[in-house]
Amino acid sequence: MSNKTGNTIAAIATPIGEGALSVIRVSGDSAIYKVAGRFHGKKNLTTVKSHTVHFGHIVNDKNKTVDEVVCTIFRAPKSFTGEDTVEISCHGGILVTRRVLECILETGVRPAEPGEFTQRAFLNGKIDLSQAEAVADLIQAQSDKARQTSLDQLDGALSKQIFVVREQLMQSLGILELELDFTEEGIALVDKKKVEKLFNITILELNQLIKTYSYGKVFREGVRVALVGLPNAGKSSILNAMLKEDRAIVTDVPGTTRDFIEEKMTIAGVLFRMIDTAGLRETEDIVEKEGVHRTWKVIKGSDIIVFIHDCTKPITSSEMIFLEKIKKEKHKELVIANNKVDLQVNKMPFEYNSEKVLIVETSAMNDEGVEKLKTTLFKKVLDQTQAESSVSVIITNVRHYSALVKAKQSLKYALKSLKSGKSEEFIAVDLRAAIDSIGEIVGLVTTEDILNNIFSKFCIGK
Amino acid sequence: MSNKTGNTIAAIATPIGEGALSVIRVSGDSAIYKVAGRFHGKKNLTTVKSHTVHFGHIVNDKNKTVDEVVCTIFRAPKSFTGEDTVEISCHGGILVTRRVLECILETGVRPAEPGEFTQRAFLNGKIDLSQAEAVADLIQAQSDKARQTSLDQLDGALSKQIFVVREQLMQSLGILELELDFTEEGIALVDKKKVEKLFNITILELNQLIKTYSYGKVFREGVRVALVGLPNAGKSSILNAMLKEDRAIVTDVPGTTRDFIEEKMTIAGVLFRMIDTAGLRETEDIVEKEGVHRTWKVIKGSDIIVFIHDCTKPITSSEMIFLEKIKKEKHKELVIANNKVDLQVNKMPFEYNSEKVLIVETSAMNDEGVEKLKTTLFKKVLDQTQAESSVSVIITNVRHYSALVKAKQSLKYALKSLKSGKSEEFIAVDLRAAIDSIGEIVGLVTTEDILNNIFSKFCIGK
Repeated sequence: MSNKTGNTIAAIATPIGEGALSVIRVSGDSAIYKVAGRFHGKKNLTTVKSHTVHFGHIVNDKNKTVDEVVCTIFRAPKSFTGEDTVEISCHGGILVTRRVLECILETGVRPAEPGEFTQRAFLNGKIDLSQAEAVADLIQAQSDKARQTSLDQLDGALSKQIFVVREQLMQSLGILELELDFTEEGIALVDKKKVEKLFNITILELNQLIKTYSYGKVFREGVRVALVGLPNAGKSSILNAMLKEDRAIVTDVPGTTRDFIEEKMTIAGVLFRMIDTAGLRETEDIVEKEGVHRTWKVIKGSDIIVFIHDCTKPITSSEMIFLEKIKKEKHKELVIANNKVDLQVNKMPFEYNSEKVLIVETSAMNDEGVEKLKTTLFKKVLDQTQAESSVSVIITNVRHYSALVKAKQSLKYALKSLKSGKSEEFIAVDLRAAIDSIGEIVGLVTTEDILNNIFSKFCIGK
Repeated sequence: MSNKTGNTIAAIATPIGEGALSVIRVSGDSAIYKVAGRFHGKKNLTTVKSHTVHFGHIVNDKNKTVDEVVCTIFRAPKSFTGEDTVEISCHGGILVTRRVLECILETGVRPAEPGEFTQRAFLNGKIDLSQAEAVADLIQAQSDKARQTSLDQLDGALSKQIFVVREQLMQSLGILELELDFTEEGIALVDKKKVEKLFNITILELNQLIKTYSYGKVFREGVRVALVGLPNAGKSSILNAMLKEDRAIVTDVPGTTRDFIEEKMTIAGVLFRMIDTAGLRETEDIVEKEGVHRTWKVIKGSDIIVFIHDCTKPITSSEMIFLEKIKKEKHKELVIANNKVDLQVNKMPFEYNSEKVLIVETSAMNDEGVEKLKTTLFKKVLDQTQAESSVSVIITNVRHYSALVKAKQSLKYALKSLKSGKSEEFIAVDLRAAIDSIGEIVGLVTTEDILNNIFSKFCIGK
């Protein structure tokens, strides 16, 4: 890792495409010097003040102008990476941006690896590991909830909480080690009570953080909703009616192949991934069977299933079988949309007896009940989260979640040893393991593997 | 137009997508004031110096942080638009960028129209019209030749030339108007000779500029190459072999639908758009016929046709018919690739008698002749351009081309009137028309229609 930090790196920091302008970021000891050698302007960049911008031209190795640019100078340590940094703002064409980057690379500056700027910010102590991860999450945020939790994390909200917990554990460890040094007859009762209390408090706090992950994950990744029902029950119309008012402003980044088209929408800041499935029916047709098979795959991967029934028709045995089958799926919420109420001649309520299954009357045609359906979907998420609304920190990252679970487990072992009167050494081993797990979150304890795994997921230029 | 300039505008200036950072540009009288109201940092942006950058947070109308940003301040007139400008560099996520823009728009700043920043730069006298157009061309440049000509134009190379020509015409007009004021018996002989000489020089210069358009267009838009031949002659293999070494680094911007997949490559800085067509053959099959029809459409839209022949087979009558048909197409260059020479058992030269048709022996399998084919394609472009390599200014824009042609035409009328001894008024009318046409290029003479037409083609944020 450390051998990477010595040299100067460069990358295009803005998305690739045609725009008014693009930014090329150069960071490292010789960043200003190297860019200055390719910059023709009124001033020599090596002598200008930090946080100033300068208009000029970038020239290639033949001294020929490649583009008109504006260079921003950030001097160490007052930059994102903590190193000398130049941001070159050039015209936002695909070719011209690459050519400007090439001019800089010609000077011996190395192309940056994904996330390398943020990695340097971490290695130089500008941000901790959880903050570094928040940068990537913020960029990928597709809903306001996801944006807000990443921003809080970037702001250090999680780090602060982690340091509080860690401090408590260090305090316990301090007491244990003192005993270890000075006593020979086990832990004094008064200290044992004190440490036990500290352990219990910390386990409680860890539990609170761990619990937030269930909706933290939802905030970050969105809620998966499968729309199922018989053919012509109105699945697509319901989906379109819901999307009409609040289509998510996110654009798909290509790369993943899906069996189904997924439409994204946000409800009150939470991302919902709506998946319109093939019609549900038991059939002999091989293609249809494949369709039904894939529908079940979608159902199994969903958080909420919206079952759409055409209320102008009686409920069929095939629908009943599916509803019962869906109900057997674990950790799934079921909402029934009794659709086409506009076409219903005789008011015939949807007859389906089940606790905890909400039935919403809808008409995609008249936009009736569509808003209520959306509120219902949101409440299915909110129900879990409302109770926890007082919690300021939300765990969204599976790495943090795992580390917290591991820390809690170690602490529980330590508590058990303490209660059963085991010697301080025993307790201290588990306690140190808990402290290490906690430290992993903010990067106090880390390995090259962890770092590579985290930063390789970043985009280049960040 | 003028009612637009009074207020403050904002737009995302970087391409839309996920990247490390995005830039939001705000320009207008209240730009700094408005952004300052949504910026929480160490300093008050309204009091900081021009060309300085400031770290802080952008907050929404509820005073809640939306993102961490760096704001760059440009004070009028030292900015791209000539107005007070703030560039907000935020995290490069799609959602977070939009949210930051929304925070600014909430303050009453208006979303910018396409090209509106550049239009303001023009209206505020920072650049002339041909330079404004060069900005858009530079962003869209897909080859180094295109980039270089746009950059020269942005740098004012065309403008300078235009002003030289215009100055000459103004000088002639001055002489004519002097005569008009002081004499009653027509133009003095000495002056007539002088004006005639000036007219002839200017027509020559205009002609030189006009001639550059044939390759200026090629530099800007690329050379269209159709690859045609019998099925299995090796069209796709040849295309892939050519692309392997020098694939253009451009990425397609979605929007246009094409009958054929177009692959882009650059040869010595010139963009070539290679189109692999369906196999050429006369057939009864309706789908094939449609394919052949579309192939002819591609041929008609191409600058160069590469006819690929499988040299292991004798030339067929169907190929001969096609070759003759292609030769009848006007303004098309024809190159024949005698392909699969690696498989040829008996050296059997391609027998096709025609002047001016180059035959290249190729083997896509062994990469044989592929480089020669590329050089040949380039020479087909270079042949036209080599002679003119001394010309420093190249016309790439059809609007400039039309204006120059119009100016030349008017000047020719003026010359004719002069020679036939018509009165100064007659000559002056045509001369003024020529001066106006020339002035249109740099925007000295302009209409709202011209401006709207030019700037509506820009991307938003520029």
